[in-house]
Amino acid sequence: MALIVQKYGGTSVGDADRIRNVARRIAARRKAGDGLVVVVSAMGNTTDDLIELAGRVTDGHPEARELDLLLSTGETMSMTLVAMALHGLGVEAVSLSGAQAGLRTDTVHGRARILSVEPERIHQELERGRVVIVSGFQGISEEQEVTTLGRGTSDTTAVALAASLATQRCEIYTDVDGVYTADPRVVPDARKLRDVNYEEMLELSALGARVINPRAVELGAVYDTPILVASSFNEEPGTLIHGGVSMEQFNRVRGIAHDLDIAKVTVRGVPDRPGIAAAILQPLADAHIPIDTIVQNASVEKLTDLTFTVHVEDLRRAVPVVERVAKEINAASIVSDDKLGKVSIVGTGIKSAPGYAARMFRTLSDAGINIDMISTGEIRITCLIQRGDVERAVRALHKAFELEKAEPSEL
Amino acid sequence: MALIVQKYGGTSVGDADRIRNVARRIAARRKAGDGLVVVVSAMGNTTDDLIELAGRVTDGHPEARELDLLLSTGETMSMTLVAMALHGLGVEAVSLSGAQAGLRTDTVHGRARILSVEPERIHQELERGRVVIVSGFQGISEEQEVTTLGRGTSDTTAVALAASLATQRCEIYTDVDGVYTADPRVVPDARKLRDVNYEEMLELSALGARVINPRAVELGAVYDTPILVASSFNEEPGTLIHGGVSMEQFNRVRGIAHDLDIAKVTVRGVPDRPGIAAAILQPLADAHIPIDTIVQNASVEKLTDLTFTVHVEDLRRAVPVVERVAKEINAASIVSDDKLGKVSIVGTGIKSAPGYAARMFRTLSDAGINIDMISTGEIRITCLIQRGDVERAVRALHKAFELEKAEPSEL
Repeated sequence: MALIVQKYGGTSVGDADRIRNVARRIAARRKAGDGLVVVVSAMGNTTDDLIELAGRVTDGHPEARELDLLLSTGETMSMTLVAMALHGLGVEAVSLSGAQAGLRTDTVHGRARILSVEPERIHQELERGRVVIVSGFQGISEEQEVTTLGRGTSDTTAVALAASLATQRCEIYTDVDGVYTADPRVVPDARKLRDVNYEEMLELSALGARVINPRAVELGAVYDTPILVASSFNEEPGTLIHGGVSMEQFNRVRGIAHDLDIAKVTVRGVPDRPGIAAAILQPLADAHIPIDTIVQNASVEKLTDLTFTVHVEDLRRAVPVVERVAKEINAASIVSDDKLGKVSIVGTGIKSAPGYAARMFRTLSDAGINIDMISTGEIRITCLIQRGDVERAVRALHKAFELEKAEPSEL
Repeated sequence: MALIVQKYGGTSVGDADRIRNVARRIAARRKAGDGLVVVVSAMGNTTDDLIELAGRVTDGHPEARELDLLLSTGETMSMTLVAMALHGLGVEAVSLSGAQAGLRTDTVHGRARILSVEPERIHQELERGRVVIVSGFQGISEEQEVTTLGRGTSDTTAVALAASLATQRCEIYTDVDGVYTADPRVVPDARKLRDVNYEEMLELSALGARVINPRAVELGAVYDTPILVASSFNEEPGTLIHGGVSMEQFNRVRGIAHDLDIAKVTVRGVPDRPGIAAAILQPLADAHIPIDTIVQNASVEKLTDLTFTVHVEDLRRAVPVVERVAKEINAASIVSDDKLGKVSIVGTGIKSAPGYAARMFRTLSDAGINIDMISTGEIRITCLIQRGDVERAVRALHKAFELEKAEPSEL
């Protein structure tokens, strides 16, 4: 008997009918003989609704400990409903809160980190032949207070449980049916990948492919826990995220990621001396504004330009911070552009292999698309371009790297 | 500094604005210097909505342990929201689940009984200067499972906490502003009582005055905890339920109660031998059909009639049960009437004092109202009459016993 951890997202348990559907899937799997631990998210928009309610009683500043306790009710609802629906199908099941399931966290309410999993109760219930339904998103701190792990972290709960229970794999069921070579809404012949490795998935996630929470992928990589991402609405095979890289996959572009909401800030005429980048960027970190790509031009007459990108939504907060610093360091001027996007090619080995970068730049050039900035990571190459060019760029690159064709390992 | 337990019902915390209103009331009381433990019910119809949801995932038969966990989320939501709203007003507050507040119950899910209250955590939080918000309706069993105490039992939680904390009194805030001499919708000049004793309140509750859960009143009587019932929507003084009976109140009719939904079943020609009443009534108890008044006529030629009343909603279930028994004991026939109601006069000492029963019967007679059955309790006299006569009877009795006039103790 294999032991499997499954996770069903908020859309998959969005209403009574969907909960019954999830229960039927679990029941079928149980009948096939597998031991099951099932992590569930809150139903549909429950978490957003609760946050809104909290905002309305407090003018928008709910206390963190109380907010976590409030938000935890969303998963308590869905986990008990799934357990009930299983009983209704004649399947023994029990629902456990994060505390009961042994998810110990630190005390940082709202974005707690899992410190350890003590799965004694889960083991007891499994030994009694029960399917164990576990609340995602929540844990219990050393102070015995309910904590939450941050938005979208039921995936993390599932992978943490899979790792601590040493299960064969963790299955994440959601409203998309896997990881694609590009966004299918942009590239109609985008192909679902049969598997990707953790690093590729992390790059694809960070670059805009919202299939699974990146923290969950990191945790999977650390504990080498394979993660299957598939749809709860059909029986398609999904995509397996794992640690291996096959010979056939190595040295290939696996997918094209894109992001439409990029803004750029350039500080011009910056005196080129040590520590100047930190002087500009530290105040942004202090203001909790995440910075993406950073480029510093070669110095001309002891003056340089420093350019960085932020999410479009953060630009309005970033500009006054940078203006203040620019004055302090005697920079010449500030220019910003909020109409950018980015496109990336992702694949293990492509950075070290020759030809990929060149083919990417030529493809964009042939399509008449101007490249504003370039940045590279271990397994990706990213170009910053005008937002209006992004979708055309994704389609051109998808075609240039022949991603619509099956990979050798799939033939 | 006095320590007070307050309880706010579902209507009082029905939406964000009402929660802020409740928080303002608590904050004002806190500033006056009192230590406060506040019990809250679930918001508005939350409990009904959750029961409906549970029904939809299970075809109406949710498992009791999971249902309790599901329903407990209703109070978790309201308690955290009230605590947040207090923080928003600058008042230190913390919300505690039934388990955290030390409400130990038996293991009967859905209608658990409180076994003990272990208020260590409450004391700790009070000593830290915090207002303690406690979830009503829920506790924790010896098996460490969340239990619920049955519908409308947040009142019971409040009185149990008041008793175990030895507070001066328990204040129940709801959407009515006290206990009246009769239903003000029926008797326009009904007067709010300044106080009633536990027994009178129990009779008034049992006879249809839905102001406070009877179990809470019983608990108040056992521990001699005074209970104030008042409105959360205004500053009117409310009604105090306590153990004392003043000389002026003794021997007076305190209120007129009524119930419009009574049905009567008569089993005719029952062989009059020992155990025959039990033979008829036990099967009804087994079917969980509560019986109200029971009357057995004097025997004529070793045959008697046995009549009992049930709530109208239970009649359809009761009749087949009685028909089966009637056949077994060779009773002659069964007659039922579903168009009855009852009216009662309530007051400590009225049973032993002469003249009250006679005045009641004469008042009804003068109004042309026929009495179908009579039953008496320690502090009440009840007449079963036709439903269509009930409201007229209440008004006539209210006038006959001069209940619109202030009591001597209030002058």
